[in-house]
Amino acid sequence: MSYQPRDPDFAAKVRDSFARQGAMAHLGVELVAVEPGMCELALPFRDEVSQQHGYFHGGIIGTVADVAGGYAVFSVTPPDTAVLTVEYKINLVAPGRGERIVARGTVLRPGRTLIVTRADVHAVEGRTETLCATMQQTIMTLPAHAGRPAG
Amino acid sequence: MSYQPRDPDFAAKVRDSFARQGAMAHLGVELVAVEPGMCELALPFRDEVSQQHGYFHGGIIGTVADVAGGYAVFSVTPPDTAVLTVEYKINLVAPGRGERIVARGTVLRPGRTLIVTRADVHAVEGRTETLCATMQQTIMTLPAHAGRPAG
Amino acid sequence: MSYQPRDPDFAAKVRDSFARQGAMAHLGVELVAVEPGMCELALPFRDEVSQQHGYFHGGIIGTVADVAGGYAVFSVTPPDTAVLTVEYKINLVAPGRGERIVARGTVLRPGRTLIVTRADVHAVEGRTETLCATMQQTIMTLPAHAGRPAG
Amino acid sequence: MSYQPRDPDFAAKVRDSFARQGAMAHLGVELVAVEPGMCELALPFRDEVSQQHGYFHGGIIGTVADVAGGYAVFSVTPPDTAVLTVEYKINLVAPGRGERIVARGTVLRPGRTLIVTRADVHAVEGRTETLCATMQQTIMTLPAHAGRPAG
Repeated sequence: MSYQPRDPDFAAKVRDSFARQGAMAHLGVELVAVEPGMCELALPFRDEVSQQHGYFHGGIIGTVADVAGGYAVFSVTPPDTAVLTVEYKINLVAPGRGERIVARGTVLRPGRTLIVTRADVHAVEGRTETLCATMQQTIMTLPAHAGRPAG
Repeated sequence: MSYQPRDPDFAAKVRDSFARQGAMAHLGVELVAVEPGMCELALPFRDEVSQQHGYFHGGIIGTVADVAGGYAVFSVTPPDTAVLTVEYKINLVAPGRGERIVARGTVLRPGRTLIVTRADVHAVEGRTETLCATMQQTIMTLPAHAGRPAG
Repeated sequence: MSYQPRDPDFAAKVRDSFARQGAMAHLGVELVAVEPGMCELALPFRDEVSQQHGYFHGGIIGTVADVAGGYAVFSVTPPDTAVLTVEYKINLVAPGRGERIVARGTVLRPGRTLIVTRADVHAVEGRTETLCATMQQTIMTLPAHAGRPAG
Repeated sequence: MSYQPRDPDFAAKVRDSFARQGAMAHLGVELVAVEPGMCELALPFRDEVSQQHGYFHGGIIGTVADVAGGYAVFSVTPPDTAVLTVEYKINLVAPGRGERIVARGTVLRPGRTLIVTRADVHAVEGRTETLCATMQQTIMTLPAHAGRPAG
């Protein structure tokens, strides 16, 4: 499905919001690409994002997937609209083993208030990409000053 | 439901494993309590775990819930058993606003291989605790040296 | 958590709505009890609700859980409010084997628009009740004539 | 992703199993197509599968999605293997309004024991197909005589 952005500055809007998420900088997540209805993030491996066996932590994988889905939606919302995660469900299908993980969030079906997204997360080792997680998520949009924050 | 630990050293086992998760130290998550079938974690607020509006990041809330559920299971597994998260689903029901969040994971129903858990996450501000998220999770147990890591 | 009904006729309202669900009559689901924030349903076993091994079908178990959660919410909504299921996630934790299943839906956390519920489903055989499924669900409320139906 | 069937009689195996599900006949669900890693089902509308506003019942939509995902897996399992649903999560994204619904389940990622699937459900009215639900599911495989039934 392809989307028309309803905010001509959608890419700058997404990058600005992403840059204000303290957790993204702290974890080392990078915004790779944003297009209308799609957002791609990457996270290089280091001990600070690992679980007890030295692979990517499943919760961190979930965090990156959640953010990729949220910004996929934010790329197609009108100006002065905030987004917040209602819920997400993620299956961890293979160990998060590699130099980095790449999460690609996409808007599955746009709605007025509730939007369903998916995100696939691949672990990258050299030229090999392995699907390590897949997420299905519900995002809510609301006026930017409605009192409840995005995220 | 109350459980008998099948490993007399269950508390030390959980604490050792938790201490080896690089992501937990990096985020600042603390292991508050572990009992058979229950694990409680806390995370003080700071910018490094925030989203763009200055509250706890929903993905980090999910991470803490995931870990609380996983160690609730690990507290009742036999020695030489690893645990891994198959999937989890989390509803973010209120903004994560407060001095810290506290996640309490519990084993809902033990099985031989697959175990279902829940975790509730509360945001704590002074003496007020507000439920901010609730998770339902599937954990798999396997022999510790089966090749696929816990987590 | 206990709730105040915002519609004094909440029980009649729930029973009327339930009676109009053709699928409930066709499956044989019975409305056992409704209280503010809680709804209990039962379904006797027969071949018409079975899977290929002669137990309760997992999808039918999910249907009963979904409805129990939805009417738990409907019992506490104001008059002229419709409810619809946004999503649900169900773990099937034991075979649905018995004379009947009983689903108990409860409102976990009320919100203005989105409400989170849970439902536990037990299989009943004589005096033995076995948890066979547990569900976490998101329900949306909206004005009754907003154009999109409850359910 | 394309799959090789590991059972040359996979189509007959799926059809036999489907025919033994009493709930499928009772609801009127039809097996439209089965290929390695994919299963498509259809359900014509009638009052017996409706909710209180005369549309397809969300729980029945979930049932059809669950079965489509399960048989997508069953089409690629070795002989003498049973499948059972561990859990599923479904978003109902539009009212189930139309002459029939069509559910298409696909294997997302095969594993030795746990397999993740997806199913999309469309409501069909004349030549118009509208996505009304999307599901993500975890299926477990086990030896056919392990004591716990498929489904």
